[in-house]
Parts: sequence; structure tokens; C-alpha cells
Amino acid sequence: MEELKQERWKKLSEKYLFREPWLTVRHNSYELPDGRVIPDYYILEYPEWVNTIAVTKDGKFVFVSQYRPGLDRTSFELCAGVSEKSDKSMEEAARRELMEETGYGGGVWQEFMTVSANASTTTNLTHCFIAEGVELCGERHLDDGEDIKVHLLTLDEVRELLLHDEIKQATHLAPLWKYFALKNL
Amino acid sequence: MEELKQERWKKLSEKYLFREPWLTVRHNSYELPDGRVIPDYYILEYPEWVNTIAVTKDGKFVFVSQYRPGLDRTSFELCAGVSEKSDKSMEEAARRELMEETGYGGGVWQEFMTVSANASTTTNLTHCFIAEGVELCGERHLDDGEDIKVHLLTLDEVRELLLHDEIKQATHLAPLWKYFALKNL
Repeated sequence: MEELKQERWKKLSEKYLFREPWLTVRHNSYELPDGRVIPDYYILEYPEWVNTIAVTKDGKFVFVSQYRPGLDRTSFELCAGVSEKSDKSMEEAARRELMEETGYGGGVWQEFMTVSANASTTTNLTHCFIAEGVELCGERHLDDGEDIKVHLLTLDEVRELLLHDEIKQATHLAPLWKYFALKNL
Repeated sequence: MEELKQERWKKLSEKYLFREPWLTVRHNSYELPDGRVIPDYYILEYPEWVNTIAVTKDGKFVFVSQYRPGLDRTSFELCAGVSEKSDKSMEEAARRELMEETGYGGGVWQEFMTVSANASTTTNLTHCFIAEGVELCGERHLDDGEDIKVHLLTLDEVRELLLHDEIKQATHLAPLWKYFALKNL
């Protein structure tokens, strides 16, 4: 397979339009390798995100559900969140989010893959973890504005959700389908 | 498995911050079911997106590569694009994008899944298709600002890209890993 040549576009200008806590947007312009100019290109800056396929000692999958205003629907999701400056690593961020949102912790963790919600316009990656053998360790501590339910699902229930297209978040579907593919589930 | 109750948040206000061709942002505020208020919530409006796992009659996968400013890297991707008002269906949008970006067409098409790049803030879905038995039908017609190379990959090459985390776009990884999982590849 041929190597991909990294043909960057030349950045001609860059200006911040918004720098709010939940919305940071840049207006950039670029010159393509063949000389064409793209005058208006918008880049969305976000911190790194994390999510986790967490499985309890008795083989249940720790899922959450919450209302999502973008799609205007409530969906099953992996536990997920945003890395904070105080997190020493992406695994620490993922462990913190799992504990805060679900009360589950412990277990054996591995980083499974990194994905981008939209490589064309978003700057961050989502770091996807697998945590096997988690257990209920304490109280949940939801952030302001979080309204999240916890669900313990069997493997068959997760497969049904996947096969019936009930999970929508692509950054969660990528690790879930990879998990099912590699384990022949 | 329990049914998810659709507990919508109550929208308290809505205002457009930006309505440009490639960036439409709304500022909303919401009241949660327990009465808490989220004063600043940003929604990104996009048209529906499409992408396609296109396989030629001799079993090659039609991939593209392009520079992606968000991640600042050049990656292998599925052929993908944005639905236009003139497209009579999402399949027509996906067929048009495949022809424009790669010159491949024909074949047997099915909608495989729909995914969201980010259900919390983006309004659109990505409609993912499988097209089997496509062939080179004509000339490519790239849009302004498109700088795309076409690659015909073997099944083994696609598997290597997936296993080595070389594809980053979550909206492409979800259907690709689902394809590998369901076909036991």
C-alpha cells in the first residue's frame, strides 16, 4: 500500500471568532498545493475527549443514557467526557469520568483506539478505552448540567442496540463495533 | 432491556450567532427536568452527510485521501460528502459524491447505518452506504476547495489500516468496523 504524502495546505490567515467555554471557533483561510485559495474555513477547537467500554466482573456493560440537544433525542451511550487540565493522562480522565457519571471504577484498563468526530473541522481526538472488571466503588458526582442515567446491559442487549442502529454517537460506535469484530461476538 | 424515556430538556431561548455557508451556530439555553438551567449551550447546524463503503467488481475498496485541517493530517477515508437540496434521496447524494470524487458508479447499494458525529451539539446524521460491484464510469469532478486522491485498496490493506488506527474519522470507522464484524472479516 502506498505511503500517504502529507500535503498540508498553506495557512494564509487565522482569526478567532468565538472563545467561549463550550465554543471556540477559528476562521482560517488556506492555499491548496495547486494554488487554489479557500477563503473561509472554520475550525472548532475542543479539548481531548474520552470514552470507555466498561465491563463489570460479571460481564455487564456499563452504559449511560442522556438527552442530546443536537439530535433532540435520548440515546444509549458509552460513558464519555472531556479531559481536564488536572488529569495527568487520558486514562485518568476516562477513569474520572466513569466514576463521576456511574460510580464504577477499578478494573484493568487499556487504550483501544483514537478517533476524530470530524477530522476536517475539529482539532481534538477521542481516546477510547476498554475497562474490564470494573465494580461499583462509590457515589456518582454529576457536573452541573448533567442529567445522566446508568444502565447495566448484557452482551446480547448491547448487540441488539448495535444491530438495530439504536446507538448514534459515531465516536462510541467505532470502538463498540471494533470490540465486537475483534472478539468475534 | 428497559425502554428509554425521552426526557427532553425545555428550550428557554434560541438565537443564531452565525449563519455562514459552512458554519451555522445557535446559542440555546435549556431547563433540565429537575429544574436546573443551562444558560449557554451551542448547537451546530449542518445538512445531512453521506459516506460509502464502495467495493469494485474485483473486490477492491474505493478509498480517498485528503488533508484535513482540523486534525492537521492527511488520512485515508471513505468517499464522503454533504447532501444537496437537489439530491432526491440520501442514496442519490452518496452516489453523486462517489462519482464526483472518484469516478466510480453503478453497483448494488444499500443504506447500512446512520451515525452522528456528535449527538450533543450537531443536528445532522451521517447516512452510511454499502455499494457493491461499482466500476469506473467517468471523469471525476471535484468541487472548489477539494484536493482528493483515490486509492483502490485490498481487503487486507483495509484491515491493516483499521488495526493500526490509521483511519481517524469516527463516522467512517463505525460503518467499516460494523462491516468487518458482520462479515467476520
